[in-house]
Amino acid sequence: VRRAEMSAEKNQILGKDKYGLDTPCLLIDIDVLHKNIRAMQESVRGKGKNLRPHAKTHKCSVIAQKQLDAGAVGICTAKLSEAEALVKGGIERILITGPVVLPLKEERLAALIQRCGELILVLDNLEQARLLSTLCEEQGLSVHVLLDIDPGLRRTGVSAEEAPDFARKIMDLAGLNLRGIQAYAGQVQHIASYEERRQRSMEYMHSAEEVFRKLVDEGMELDIFTGAGTGTFDIDTDLEGLTDLQVGSYVFMDAEYRAIGSALEKEAFTLFEPALTMLAAVVSSNQSGFVTVDAGLKSMYRHGGTPIIIYPRDALYSYDWFGDEYGKISFAEKSKSIPPGSMFELVVSHCDPTVNLFDRFYVTKDDRVVDMWNIDLRGKSS
Amino acid sequence: VRRAEMSAEKNQILGKDKYGLDTPCLLIDIDVLHKNIRAMQESVRGKGKNLRPHAKTHKCSVIAQKQLDAGAVGICTAKLSEAEALVKGGIERILITGPVVLPLKEERLAALIQRCGELILVLDNLEQARLLSTLCEEQGLSVHVLLDIDPGLRRTGVSAEEAPDFARKIMDLAGLNLRGIQAYAGQVQHIASYEERRQRSMEYMHSAEEVFRKLVDEGMELDIFTGAGTGTFDIDTDLEGLTDLQVGSYVFMDAEYRAIGSALEKEAFTLFEPALTMLAAVVSSNQSGFVTVDAGLKSMYRHGGTPIIIYPRDALYSYDWFGDEYGKISFAEKSKSIPPGSMFELVVSHCDPTVNLFDRFYVTKDDRVVDMWNIDLRGKSS
Repeated sequence: VRRAEMSAEKNQILGKDKYGLDTPCLLIDIDVLHKNIRAMQESVRGKGKNLRPHAKTHKCSVIAQKQLDAGAVGICTAKLSEAEALVKGGIERILITGPVVLPLKEERLAALIQRCGELILVLDNLEQARLLSTLCEEQGLSVHVLLDIDPGLRRTGVSAEEAPDFARKIMDLAGLNLRGIQAYAGQVQHIASYEERRQRSMEYMHSAEEVFRKLVDEGMELDIFTGAGTGTFDIDTDLEGLTDLQVGSYVFMDAEYRAIGSALEKEAFTLFEPALTMLAAVVSSNQSGFVTVDAGLKSMYRHGGTPIIIYPRDALYSYDWFGDEYGKISFAEKSKSIPPGSMFELVVSHCDPTVNLFDRFYVTKDDRVVDMWNIDLRGKSS
Repeated sequence: VRRAEMSAEKNQILGKDKYGLDTPCLLIDIDVLHKNIRAMQESVRGKGKNLRPHAKTHKCSVIAQKQLDAGAVGICTAKLSEAEALVKGGIERILITGPVVLPLKEERLAALIQRCGELILVLDNLEQARLLSTLCEEQGLSVHVLLDIDPGLRRTGVSAEEAPDFARKIMDLAGLNLRGIQAYAGQVQHIASYEERRQRSMEYMHSAEEVFRKLVDEGMELDIFTGAGTGTFDIDTDLEGLTDLQVGSYVFMDAEYRAIGSALEKEAFTLFEPALTMLAAVVSSNQSGFVTVDAGLKSMYRHGGTPIIIYPRDALYSYDWFGDEYGKISFAEKSKSIPPGSMFELVVSHCDPTVNLFDRFYVTKDDRVVDMWNIDLRGKSS
């Protein structure tokens, strides 16, 4: 039923002007999306590294496939349920970047190991590693694993000091194929100053790199040292040992990442452009100097800075949340008002959790609707 | 496919201990839910008022039906898409509390007017009223409308001064059946002090009441003056003219509402108890004094105060968000740790947007799973 509904709706809106779409909705400019995918692939490839983009940003198999087609070596997800959805969407090479807890999720995990071409898990707990090994033995499976190393975030991962011993113990467990390490310094990704971000990231990631080198020197055959995010895409590539980058937000960009500096453009982060935007319409205009629009905290996640209004371009506007269902858009001219139905296009504040609030993307080219993509990883938190 | 998947899952988990469910997930204690529904119905009925509960909290037709069965005169939704979902779920008497913008949504609105037994819309703009009248005339429809009056929130609604003239103009428009007024003072609902909340709400709502009286005195046959929220459920009932209350959060309660005082219990808001909780599991425990759990801002909306941990009950814990996918639960004992897979149950900070992050509720009685309900109004922002 859902698929039939979707294709009926798709037929209705193909070719339509995007500013005529029902609101609130999420738009993707396909040319900007492709440009971002290519720009990151080329930048990383130019430094001799691979790309393993994180699907937690786009939550969409169609986009994951585009990243693979452009040369990515695999796709990351945060949760098991996201990986399940990717496999349903035809994606085969998946790294789940967060620990999958056993025995809680053992049935689902065993099914996924069997269905997925190359599934890589991370481990940060020896008892969990033993449970995974037992599961594999009992079901005649084997699975690729990475050691999750904590680069100072203290969220998941073992410390660099404990890591070598932990790795040796994993080597002894049946069914587990240790491929390398993961280190993600989430706490540095949004540091506004490029220089400070570089310094902090290098400091944290060097200890993980030393672990990787030590293990390789001991004779372990490791081929993956994965980490980094959009905020350090042109920093962590300087780590000699790093093999691939788990960048996510570059594909869409958001107000939060736009605000920080990169090596190339230190004032604003503009190598990547906003591919994802939100369309909202005025629902009430009985005040002077501001109107009420139909996108509030239920459709634009209230996190990570202030949304940026990019359409209309002719004046200065600012957005603020106005409850669950509404937003308040204020004008520079205090006497101004515009009627219900007037359209605004915004760069959302934090793209990942905002994408999670919708079921589909309306894909546009030159401001016309050319496609509709299912956000098939939406709501996958388990 | 989805329905079949759901009933297969339902068969698997019926009778299961709730602390064995996969995480993160939303739980409803059915006895507490029924108690909250009855307590509000009786409280309001005791003051000679009706109940028109807001579905924006629970986003679930099954619960809307329970509220109607208990005696509610109708169900409120904020958006057209929520009303569409309720009608699909078999609910007939619906008030959409926010303006539905024309011509943007005219096709969907005309279809809903035809499908829904009693649909009530609100109006705060004369041009929009004219477009609605034209739509009704062209399609041979008629629709119930309320005048939306702004009680100082300045979000939607016309001012009390302009309201009488606006009402007279609506009376002249074909196809529109003016039933009364709506006034929702959202800005006072979470004021912590009961006395201050009472004073502020009365101040704002009295001007709306005067409009209602004036219109009735002019001979208009109006039978609805609707407003109020959970924060003023025992305050706005003192307004003689008020006919029904649009309370929402009482059905679940959340940390935000727990923090405020009511007339009966001035220290904490405890006439209603938490019916909705979240289950989260430890995914990483390599630190002293805190662990990482699998519910972050993607599954527990970061808004409206701090989640409260209610299980386990044996010690002092506190929750904080730890990124999109993770939460950090800290112990009073700084040396304590507990292993991956350990379970926590929490009262979420702001129930409405958190419910919007899930597809289903797991319904429990005496801590055993007895049902699974589809959150069929999830993601309905348009």
